Amino acid sequence: MGTEFLKIMECDDASDIIRDLFDENLKPESEQINVGEAYGRILFEDVYSRMDFPPFNKALKDGFAILSSDSFGASEESPNTLEVIDFLEAGAITDNKVEEGKCIEISTGAAMPDGADAVVMVEYAEKFEDKVNLLTTAVPFQDVAKKGSDIEEGKLILKKGDFLNPGKIGVLLSQGFETIEVYKKPSVGILSSGNEITLQGEELEYGKIYDVNGGMIKNDAVSCGADARFLGVMRDDYDEVKEKIIESLNEVDILFCSGGTSAGLGDVLKHVLDELGEVYIHGISVQPGKPTIVGIIDGKIVIGLPGNPVSALMIFNAFVAEPLTKLAGIDKNFEMKVIKGKITKRIHSQVGRMQYQLVKVDGENILPIFKDSGAIFSLSTADGYVKIPKLVELVDEGEEVEVYLFN
Amino acid sequence: MGTEFLKIMECDDASDIIRDLFDENLKPESEQINVGEAYGRILFEDVYSRMDFPPFNKALKDGFAILSSDSFGASEESPNTLEVIDFLEAGAITDNKVEEGKCIEISTGAAMPDGADAVVMVEYAEKFEDKVNLLTTAVPFQDVAKKGSDIEEGKLILKKGDFLNPGKIGVLLSQGFETIEVYKKPSVGILSSGNEITLQGEELEYGKIYDVNGGMIKNDAVSCGADARFLGVMRDDYDEVKEKIIESLNEVDILFCSGGTSAGLGDVLKHVLDELGEVYIHGISVQPGKPTIVGIIDGKIVIGLPGNPVSALMIFNAFVAEPLTKLAGIDKNFEMKVIKGKITKRIHSQVGRMQYQLVKVDGENILPIFKDSGAIFSLSTADGYVKIPKLVELVDEGEEVEVYLFN
Repeated sequence: MGTEFLKIMECDDASDIIRDLFDENLKPESEQINVGEAYGRILFEDVYSRMDFPPFNKALKDGFAILSSDSFGASEESPNTLEVIDFLEAGAITDNKVEEGKCIEISTGAAMPDGADAVVMVEYAEKFEDKVNLLTTAVPFQDVAKKGSDIEEGKLILKKGDFLNPGKIGVLLSQGFETIEVYKKPSVGILSSGNEITLQGEELEYGKIYDVNGGMIKNDAVSCGADARFLGVMRDDYDEVKEKIIESLNEVDILFCSGGTSAGLGDVLKHVLDELGEVYIHGISVQPGKPTIVGIIDGKIVIGLPGNPVSALMIFNAFVAEPLTKLAGIDKNFEMKVIKGKITKRIHSQVGRMQYQLVKVDGENILPIFKDSGAIFSLSTADGYVKIPKLVELVDEGEEVEVYLFN
Repeated sequence: MGTEFLKIMECDDASDIIRDLFDENLKPESEQINVGEAYGRILFEDVYSRMDFPPFNKALKDGFAILSSDSFGASEESPNTLEVIDFLEAGAITDNKVEEGKCIEISTGAAMPDGADAVVMVEYAEKFEDKVNLLTTAVPFQDVAKKGSDIEEGKLILKKGDFLNPGKIGVLLSQGFETIEVYKKPSVGILSSGNEITLQGEELEYGKIYDVNGGMIKNDAVSCGADARFLGVMRDDYDEVKEKIIESLNEVDILFCSGGTSAGLGDVLKHVLDELGEVYIHGISVQPGKPTIVGIIDGKIVIGLPGNPVSALMIFNAFVAEPLTKLAGIDKNFEMKVIKGKITKRIHSQVGRMQYQLVKVDGENILPIFKDSGAIFSLSTADGYVKIPKLVELVDEGEEVEVYLFN
């Protein structure tokens, strides 16, 4: 019992190492998905227009497609009269051409017929039988959107890293894209450990507790853009942990293990990581969450989180959320959501370690939630946490602080 | 050709009517889902704790479970010696009791054995064979979390309307919840119409364009918390529109129809709605987006959006996003994201109609995107829009404006 840590590491150093391990070992990958299902995904490629848009000279109004010169001089008092030789709805085409003295009735959105260079709106025309009186003069390209006037073929329309919102999805659809290359969601797995851990749906025996971290960290990874799954519960046994880790790393690229107790899994995990790969972090100088362990096995990342759910959640948010969202392609759009406010109650902090203090946000007021770090119910109301640097002993009532908001 | 509008309606009146139609016709519904899949969903019920937590008196440290009175007076200089009669790991139980002079070695997280009322940390104890020297005095309940100290059974732990973030999911898991009742996603369908509309993947004939609104409005509805699907393309034909609407309303509660042209579908839809149900809005005094139509058929909502994608997107965001998110249960958390900034170029607006002007946001600078409203590529860069009230003719360079951001 009792854990020997490799070397307790300062928070900033641990952050740097985790960021570097992600960068060096895991490259962002891409996948092809349907544009119609793309909301919230991140483009993995620059996208160029495939064609002019509009793809033809397009009527912008309901009216009459004419030679503009046929309207010159026309007015309500002295209309010009043309022969109406056809009717063109949007989507239709015709072999008829517009020549001097002739016109084609046309709907908004239709391709301009050959010969015509302007539209006279229906409001400025009087149709009778197969004739029409134009009541106004139209300039060339009046109420016509020229082919390629919105975008020409071969132009950059969207950029790698763009967040696909409905408008950008519309742009892709207008160019006929059926599928598009987006960042693949990083593949994340979570293993829980501990002989006391019971799955929801099973009866809880005396002395046991329900698993929290499996489902909670899974959902936190999902909130960071990952494809995450819970991979089950293992006992704090060397062979079982080793086997489960090997099995899991066949399925995922990033594996979280969280132990029921701070000591148990930490020791076992350290030895398994030493055997199968390399340990880079074993212990971070932070409260709560000290027994965090980070290692690499065959280019995949294994992170041992504290068993205590509050600690596990904080460590995940403080150290892993940023590199994970970066891998998911959303770092450009990701801002660790930080707000400012005033602390409503004095916080005492242990000097020598960075402390993360859970808080509730109420407008400008930041209320510390003082509970033992095992108190899972503080998460019913916690909106985020405040960082108290290692050399600060006290944050006084009324002091301004930054709150790191949970997803 | 040309559309007769029922009565062009002011923006605010249209907003009120749409909000009321949602409230009166569509009640929020709920569904049961797995807690492990609940990220981002909204609770439909108040949730009470099912059991005390911790469910037993729990050791908070690795050490020795003792009768606190057995430690009184103990110190490094003069330790008290106890017999170690058992070892308890987390999740394990024992029939052995702690009595005067005896103790049980215990792991963090284990249930306290009968008789013991305190833990002496391993750091303050020296074990030798089956004995231990206690080097410190422990008070009653030292390093013990009492049963129910975090939460008692029957307490309100989460509220209807709560956004299920990872922490709240953790709270539910700790209480053994396998499933939970959340707001059901509103069921939304989208029909596109127009003879010129071609689906992605098909070859584009001359005079035709690809469908944008089907996929774009679907994704916008998804961004508002809906379960949305594209239901296909129909021709602007009375019988076909009627049949498709009847068919679609068997599947969804809210149906968007968008026409390829501003006139075509509007007329047909008006007549179909008149026959099958009732029209409440036909024409809104807004630029772009005037030919919007809203009706009710058998308690379901049918909304005819402009065919022009930019107009359709604006109308959706300005009039439908809020009631839709409310129905999805996220109105409490929904803030129509609004930011402030300074316009970088003068905007002229037509007096008499509310105008929505697309803009790009660059820090504090708000850049108007001046394009014909058919210009879909303005959506490559648009971040949102500015509202220019009907009696305002001009927004000058440098004026402060509010930007309604797109999802």
